[in-house]
This record gives sequence, structure tokens and C-alpha cells, in this order.
Amino acid sequence: MQQIEQYQKSFLAYLEGFSTVKEPNNLYQPINYILKLGGKRLRPVLTLMTTEVFGGEAKKAMDAALSVEVFHNFSLVHDDIMDDAPLRRGKKTVHEKWDLNTGILSGDAMLILAYQLFENYDPETFQALAKLFSKTALEVCEGQQYDIDFETRNDVTIPQYLKMIEYKTAVLVGAAMKMGAIVAKASVKDQNAIYDFGRNLGIAFQLQDDYLDAFGNPETFGKQVGGDILEHKKTYLYLKTLELGSETDKARLFDFINNNALSNDVKVNEVKTVFKASGAAEATQIAVEDYTEKAFGILNTLDISEEKKQLLRLFGEQLMNRNT
Amino acid sequence: MQQIEQYQKSFLAYLEGFSTVKEPNNLYQPINYILKLGGKRLRPVLTLMTTEVFGGEAKKAMDAALSVEVFHNFSLVHDDIMDDAPLRRGKKTVHEKWDLNTGILSGDAMLILAYQLFENYDPETFQALAKLFSKTALEVCEGQQYDIDFETRNDVTIPQYLKMIEYKTAVLVGAAMKMGAIVAKASVKDQNAIYDFGRNLGIAFQLQDDYLDAFGNPETFGKQVGGDILEHKKTYLYLKTLELGSETDKARLFDFINNNALSNDVKVNEVKTVFKASGAAEATQIAVEDYTEKAFGILNTLDISEEKKQLLRLFGEQLMNRNT
Repeated sequence: MQQIEQYQKSFLAYLEGFSTVKEPNNLYQPINYILKLGGKRLRPVLTLMTTEVFGGEAKKAMDAALSVEVFHNFSLVHDDIMDDAPLRRGKKTVHEKWDLNTGILSGDAMLILAYQLFENYDPETFQALAKLFSKTALEVCEGQQYDIDFETRNDVTIPQYLKMIEYKTAVLVGAAMKMGAIVAKASVKDQNAIYDFGRNLGIAFQLQDDYLDAFGNPETFGKQVGGDILEHKKTYLYLKTLELGSETDKARLFDFINNNALSNDVKVNEVKTVFKASGAAEATQIAVEDYTEKAFGILNTLDISEEKKQLLRLFGEQLMNRNT
Repeated sequence: MQQIEQYQKSFLAYLEGFSTVKEPNNLYQPINYILKLGGKRLRPVLTLMTTEVFGGEAKKAMDAALSVEVFHNFSLVHDDIMDDAPLRRGKKTVHEKWDLNTGILSGDAMLILAYQLFENYDPETFQALAKLFSKTALEVCEGQQYDIDFETRNDVTIPQYLKMIEYKTAVLVGAAMKMGAIVAKASVKDQNAIYDFGRNLGIAFQLQDDYLDAFGNPETFGKQVGGDILEHKKTYLYLKTLELGSETDKARLFDFINNNALSNDVKVNEVKTVFKASGAAEATQIAVEDYTEKAFGILNTLDISEEKKQLLRLFGEQLMNRNT
């Protein structure tokens, strides 16, 4: 998609201007470091694209797009501390490269900087953006808390899991798009519709991530296939096996997961067999399709040209085919 | 001061209504815990009082006052992690009562909640409050970073130290008062003047805290007298000794501080003798007076009645006499 690369390029140029040298160095250097680690810049691109879809200028949405990216990176810095993660995009995480205190304090500063990026908008737009931002940011914190809680719970339901991934991942995709709509001064109806489009697409994307973590092609998936299984994560595949599987399926799932005598490869393959036999694999694929269709269905309600709808649909399809 | 108790009382009632039971419990319970640990509620009282000084209604400033208090407590939660502090107001700190991750995540949520508390104001007021809040919050982070940096530096200058305490402590006092002025729709000139009043009073208060930590009455000071000396803190007294003291004074200071054979009592008393002999003790008292006078001088420029100025002066005097 030619246009997406263009948005990425102009966003990266804008990001470059944001990271100036400021004092104290020990606070701002880690912020520049994490912001320049790379990534597809999916969320800010969505903000810029959505502004243009609703007839606004991408450059006017640049601060909002940057705010979304700064917030996303704030959440990565603090989540990496909580997950004790040594690496992020193949490089050291902030708390590993510096220390715990630097990770906490630089993250805090990023959350504040994300709000400051709305300051150049007029008061009404500022308030609309900041309100949406606060609501979303709080939901992301709640999603992270649910995720932590689920690690030690054995009674997680499918609706609870869906709410967790919605809060932890999907609402920020919806908010990134709604911010673009707010900057373009789209109608409230369109603002809410594009939010729901992004939110549903975000859920579909996360469910597909669960599926690909087990069944993806190791050469194109990017992460270690089977990682969720080895980490005993209560993914959609896992929870659906508990819901749909026979007693035998469930017994085999627990046996394989807790059998430390098995090699990783064998363990992953055996669990995948159970995911398939129980019907959980297929149910996950259907859920991905359902949420994707739900997102695309919302496009029809938007007050924009067919051409613009086609652009959003194309983006959604490319996202779900993971070619972006 | 009758009125201050009244403000405290109405603020505490408002705070009570804020802490409702929300899910996930593991995120919101620590927030309620820290907010109810107590304290003089100095900052929110300042917001309420300042609103009335400028002819506004205290109840309209309640959300802004609560935002200041929530932010202050956010900074306590994250600072306590960074300082590895087990206790806060005689009770367990959040990361001790729960764990590190809870401290980080609940703190993050509090920072967001502080912004949300501005949402009921009209867009212009909202933007003015949020801008001031972001600037202040970022300075508080910078002050905390300078404080951490100073621990391992031996070349800290007096101006650098003053900037650190200004950022870490004083700007939030100024901002608490300015928010009251903003809600009361005071003139920009008066908003900035009351900010400077609070900021200078905040610096005076912190310098006095440095002084009292060594020379305060153990029965009324509240903290362990000599704590800064035993922790090798580079306070104003310490830095002034390096600036004003003779070579003998400085040599004795280093000797006493690093001599682990001395009992705590002897160490504290010997260092206090050096603080006096070098002229640092007197210089600190003069600095406290200078900043207090600077604050009071600003009151004369305010466009309010003599009676109101008298109220602010009385508050300042009581604060500096530590009877509040």
C-alpha cells in the first residue's frame, strides 16, 4: 500500500524533530531510545490516514499521531518492567539498558508528554482528544491488570478474556483512528463508528495473533511459534479448548503443558493437536473472521465516499493478512 | 486557622465520594489505600483557598484540588519504589503492601485519573488546567531525576540544588494555587503572581525542612532529626558548608560523615557543629527568610483586597512556623 508507506515516512520525519536534546539527560535519553527502536508505527499511521479519510489534512493530525505513539511506547516501557522482559525489538529494554528507576520515571514522563502533544489544538479539540486519551489510557491499564490477574486465575471466562484483549490492545487502535476523525472534525456519529471499526479490527488482530502463535508459519510470523504454549498463557485457543473440548482433550492439554520431560517441540506439537481436535483452532479462526466482518460492516455506515471506504477495507485486509 | 480546617474537612468529604469500588480491584484498591493514608492535604486546601481569594467558589475548585492531591500521591507511590521505602506515614508503602508491578500500574492509573478530574470544566478552563498540570508534572519528574543524579555526583552547585527542590517540590505548590486562580477566572497577571507566591513559599519551606532536619526540635519535627546527615544527603546545609566553610570545616565534615566508628548521635552532633562553624546554618536561615520575603512581596502586586492578602500572609506564616 503506497499511501501507508508515505504516512510512515512523514511520521518518522516528524518524530525525528520531537526528540531534541533536553535536560536532565538521564530522563530524556531513554525516551529517545525507545521511540527510535523502530516498529511499523501502525497506530500513528492510522491517525493520519483517518484524518484524510474524513477530509482533514494529515499534517494537522501529526501531534495527535505522535501522542498515540508516545503513549504506546510508555506502555511498552512499563509493561517490560512488569514482564521482566530483557529485550524489545531485539534491543535491550529501557530498565535493562539503564535501571528500574529510569524505566519508571522515563515512562511517567512519556505519559505526560503524550498529553502535552495535544496543546497546540484549539480548546474544544484539545478537550475531545484528551478525554478520549484518558479513557483509553485507563482502559489499557485495566487491561494490563486483568492480564496480570489472569496469570494466577484458573476460572477465566471467554468474555473476560475478550474484554482483557479489547482493553489492553484494541481500544488504542480505535482511539488512534477516532483521534484522526476528531482532528478532521468529522461528525460524532462517524467518530464513534470509526472507533468501533478500529476496536473490532484490533480484537480480530489480537485473536489472530493467538492463532498464529501456535499455527503460524515460523518463517513469517516474527515471534517464536509456540511461545504462548510454552509460557502456559491462557489464550483464546486455550480457553476455547476448555470450553469445547472433551474431558480427554482437556486432560491431554493439562498433561502436555505440565509435562516438563517433553522437549519444547514435542510439547508444542502435542498441544496444537489438542487445539485442533477440540475444535478450538477452528473456533478461533471463526472468531477472527467474525470480528473482521463486524469491523467491515461498520464501514458501510460511514458518511464518506466509496473510494475512502475501499481504502479502509484494503488497510484492514492487509493488516489481517499481515503484509503491512 | 479556622478556615483551613474547614477546607480540609470539605475536601476530605469530596475525596470520600471519589474512591468508589471499581474493577479490576487489584488496580483501584491500592489507589484508595494511598489516598486515604492521611496527611495535611496542604495542596488541595491551597487550591480551594486560592479560588475563594480570587472571588470564586471553593466547591467549583474541588475537582482541580482533587487532581492535585491524586497527582501528589501518584508521585509518592512511584518515588517510594525508587527510594525503596518500606513505610509512608507509618503504614506500608503500596509496593510493600502489594508488589512492584501493582505500585507501577496503580501509579500510572492515578496520573491518568488526575487528568480526568479536569473533564467537567469548560474547554478553555480544561485546557488551561491541563497545560499547567502537564508542565508541572514534567518538572516534578525532572526534579526527581536531578535528585537521583545528585546522589552520585560530587559537583552539585547551589543553583542546581535550588532548581532541583523547586522542580521536585515547589512548582506543585505554585500550581495548586494557580489552579484555584484559573477556576476563579482571575487575570493572567494574578494567576502568575499567585503561582510565584506558592513557588517561592515552597522553596522556603523545603530549605527550612533541610534546616530543621538538623536543627529542629525532635519533639515537634515529626521526622528523625539528623536523618539527612546519616543518609549523606547533599542538602542546602551541606552544600553551603562546602561553599562557605574553611578547609578545616570541609575536612571535618567529610571525616565525620564517613566515620562509621561514630555513633549516630555523635555523628549528627559533630556535623551540626560544622554546619554552624562554617556559617552554613546561618546562611540557610537567611535563605529561608529571603524566599519567604520574596513570596510575601508578591502579595502586594495582587489585585485583591487587603483582607485577602492578609489571609494569604497568615497562611504563609503559619506554614513557615509549621503550626498548620
